[in-house]
Amino acid sequence: MTLTRQDCLALDAADPLAPLRAQFQLPEGVNYLDGNSLGVLPRSTGQRVAEVIQQEWGEGLIRSWNSAGWITLPQRVGDKVGRLVGAQPGELVVADSTSINLYKVLSAALSIARVNHPERKVILSERSNFPTDLYIAQSLAAQHGMTLKLTTAEQLAQDLSQDVAVLMLTHVNYRSGRMFDMASVTAQAHAVGTLTVWDLAHSAGAVPVDLNGAQADFAIGCGYKYLNGGPGAPAFVWAHARHADRFWQPLSGWMGHAHPFTFDTQYAPAAGISRYLCGTPAVLAMSALECGVDTLLAAEPLGGMAALRAKSLQLTDLFIAQVRERCAGHALPVATPPAHSERGSQVSLACPEHGYAVMQALIARGVIGDFRAGDGTAAEPDLLRFGFTPLYVRFVDVYDAVTALATVLDSGEWREARFNQKAAVT
Amino acid sequence: MTLTRQDCLALDAADPLAPLRAQFQLPEGVNYLDGNSLGVLPRSTGQRVAEVIQQEWGEGLIRSWNSAGWITLPQRVGDKVGRLVGAQPGELVVADSTSINLYKVLSAALSIARVNHPERKVILSERSNFPTDLYIAQSLAAQHGMTLKLTTAEQLAQDLSQDVAVLMLTHVNYRSGRMFDMASVTAQAHAVGTLTVWDLAHSAGAVPVDLNGAQADFAIGCGYKYLNGGPGAPAFVWAHARHADRFWQPLSGWMGHAHPFTFDTQYAPAAGISRYLCGTPAVLAMSALECGVDTLLAAEPLGGMAALRAKSLQLTDLFIAQVRERCAGHALPVATPPAHSERGSQVSLACPEHGYAVMQALIARGVIGDFRAGDGTAAEPDLLRFGFTPLYVRFVDVYDAVTALATVLDSGEWREARFNQKAAVT
Repeated sequence: MTLTRQDCLALDAADPLAPLRAQFQLPEGVNYLDGNSLGVLPRSTGQRVAEVIQQEWGEGLIRSWNSAGWITLPQRVGDKVGRLVGAQPGELVVADSTSINLYKVLSAALSIARVNHPERKVILSERSNFPTDLYIAQSLAAQHGMTLKLTTAEQLAQDLSQDVAVLMLTHVNYRSGRMFDMASVTAQAHAVGTLTVWDLAHSAGAVPVDLNGAQADFAIGCGYKYLNGGPGAPAFVWAHARHADRFWQPLSGWMGHAHPFTFDTQYAPAAGISRYLCGTPAVLAMSALECGVDTLLAAEPLGGMAALRAKSLQLTDLFIAQVRERCAGHALPVATPPAHSERGSQVSLACPEHGYAVMQALIARGVIGDFRAGDGTAAEPDLLRFGFTPLYVRFVDVYDAVTALATVLDSGEWREARFNQKAAVT
Repeated sequence: MTLTRQDCLALDAADPLAPLRAQFQLPEGVNYLDGNSLGVLPRSTGQRVAEVIQQEWGEGLIRSWNSAGWITLPQRVGDKVGRLVGAQPGELVVADSTSINLYKVLSAALSIARVNHPERKVILSERSNFPTDLYIAQSLAAQHGMTLKLTTAEQLAQDLSQDVAVLMLTHVNYRSGRMFDMASVTAQAHAVGTLTVWDLAHSAGAVPVDLNGAQADFAIGCGYKYLNGGPGAPAFVWAHARHADRFWQPLSGWMGHAHPFTFDTQYAPAAGISRYLCGTPAVLAMSALECGVDTLLAAEPLGGMAALRAKSLQLTDLFIAQVRERCAGHALPVATPPAHSERGSQVSLACPEHGYAVMQALIARGVIGDFRAGDGTAAEPDLLRFGFTPLYVRFVDVYDAVTALATVLDSGEWREARFNQKAAVT
C-alpha cells in the first residue's frame, strides 16, 4: 500500500476537516509540525486583540472591566476550554501559567491527602514527565515533608501502592508522545486511595479528554500548544466538583476571593473553581487565547474532538508508515507507541546520532519539528519530535516532511547544519 | 491666588513635560483621573502587539523564542522597569501577577527570617493595605505557623518590635494615597532585625523610588497602573543583591531553573533574580507592557521621574486647593496627606454620604475617577479617588474636574446617578 504524493493530495481533497485550515495564517514555505510546542496564529487573533487594545482598553478604559466583560474572562474562556476536556460549565478557569496552576492543584491535592491519609508521604510521577512539573512537585514535597518518587509508565502499576498520596502525571508525554489511559489509571489510583493530578499540556485540543468521565481529581493544561493561544498564553485549571469547594489553595489572591470588590481584610475563598484564580486577569493574553480555543470549537459541527482525533491518528499512522518505508536505510526507531490507545498527536523518532543537526537541516528545508536531547540511556534517547495538529496539518504535509527527512539523511546534508544549540520551548 | 481656567491653560502651555501626552491615545470627551487603577493606551502599543502577533508569532513561530528574543523578555523589560525604581540591570524581572510575585518574595523573606530569627512569628502589615497583599500574607502565615499582624501608619513605629520577622507594606496606600518614607521605614525595620517587602503597585512610574538607596530587601509591583502596560499586564519582582542568590522561592518553575533547556529532572535555581521566574513568559502581554514602560523612559531626557514627580505634586496641590476653594460648601475632607513627602500621585476625598452616586455622576460627565467604600469608621471613610499621572494629565484637566465635581454637588445631580454597584479593579 505504498502511497504517492498524489494519493496524499487526494486524501486532503476528501478530508471533511480540511476547511478548518483556512482559520490560520500559515507562513509561506513552512511545513509546521511543531504545534505541540507553539500553536500557529489564527486569522481572527490579530483583529480581536487590536479591538481589545483600541476599543476596550483605549476607549473604554477602566469601564471595560464591566462593559467589555473583562472581569469574567477567566470563566468565559474557561468554559470554552472545558468543552474540549470533558468539564462542565463553571468547572474550569483560565489563569496564570501551567506551572503555577500545578502548584495550586497539587497543593490542594496534598492538603486533601493529608486529611484522608496523613501517613502517606509520597508524590508519584513519571521520570520523563516535563521538568517544570517535577520542579513544582519537588518544592511542594519539601514543604510537606514528603518525597517525590519517579517511575516509568511500565512500572507505574507496581509503584502505585498505598503509600502514594498523589499521583501526578502528564497525560501525553512531551517526549515520546505516549498517552496514559486516564480513566483506567485514575481507577487504579483511586483503588488504593490515591488522588490524581493530570497535566493536559499535550492533550487539550489534541486528543479527546473526558475529565468527569474519568473521575479525575485535578487537571491543568497549557494554552499555547494545541489551543493556539499564542506564545506564553494563559493556562487553565480544573478540579472535580467533589473537591472544588474543599481546601483553598495557597495562592490566595483577590480574584479567588468570594467578594473581591468588598475589599475585606480577611480572605474567604470563592465557591467552586473560581477560588483557583489569584491576580487580575491578563486581558490581552486571554483574548488571544479565546481566539485560539474558538478554532477548535469550530470543529464541533464537523464531529469535534472525535473527528479531529480520527484525523490525527491517520496523520501519525501515515507518518510512521512513510518513515519506515522511505527512511528504511537509517536507524530511526519510532519512540511513540504503535497502539492508537497509547499515542498522542505527535510522533517521536529516536535518532541516536546527530539528531540535533538532522533537525536543523530539516528546519532549513522549511520542515519545522524539534529536537529533544535524551540522557544518553536507551530509555531516553535523543528524539526528533513531530507534532500533527489535525486542524491545519495536511496529509501532503506528512508526505513532504518524510521526503525532506529522507533527503536530509540520504544526502548527508545534516553535516552542514549549524551546530549552535539554541533554546526551544516545549 | 485664585486660579482661573485660563491660568491652567497657561500652566500647560509652559509645561516642559506637556509633549509627553502625545504618546497616548486618549478618548474624546474623557478627563481620565484613574491611571492609578488602569493606565491609558500608548499610541505605540497597538502596532507593536500587531507586529508580535503577525511577524514574530505568525511568521516566526517557534523560532521567535530565539530570533525575536522572546526568551529574554522578562529580563529586558525588567531592566527598563528597574530604571524607574532604582534597581540595577539584572536585578528585576517581569513575571506573573503582583499577587503571585508577592507570594514568591514573602516566602523568600520568611525563609531568611526563619534562619536569622527562628523565634519570630509575626508578619506586620498595614490594616488598609490592598486586600490581595493581606490574603497572600495570611496564606503564608498559616503555612509558616506565623501571625499576620495589622497596624496603621501611625502605630507602625510602635508595632515594629523584635518579634516581627517581615514588614510588608505598600509604599503608596491604594485608598488614601499616603506614602511611606521607604528609606526611613526600612532603616527602622533593619534596626530591629526585620526584613522589608515593598509593594510598589502605586509607586512605580508614579513617584521616584530608589530600592537600592533605601536598602530595601524585596519589592514587587504592578504593570497596568502607572506603567501603562494594559489590563492585567504582567507584574515585576526585585530582590536586593544580598538576598537574590539565597533561598529559592517555592514557585520553582522551569524558567527559574539554572538551565531550563537541559530538561534536568532536578530543580536547580538560576543565579540572581531569574530564579523568581516560573512559567513560560507571556509574550504578547510583556510586549504591550514594554510599550507602556517606554512612555515613562521617554521622560528621561526631560528630567525623568524627578521631573514627573514635581509635576505630579503641582497637579495634586492644585486639585486640593481647587476643591477647598470651589467645593467649600460641601463636606469633602482631603484624606491624602498634605505633606509632599507623604503623598503619592493621587488625591482621595472623604465623602461620607452618597460618594458612589457622586462618582457615577462625575463619570457621566466624562470625569473618570473611582469610588472606594470605607468600613463605616472615621479611619476608613468612603472615598472619591483621583489619580494624577503627570505623563498625560494637564493642569486644565484638574481645573475641569473640580468644575464637574462642584457642579455635581451644587446641582444635586448625583441624586439621578444610577445606583448599580459595579466592580472596579484598583
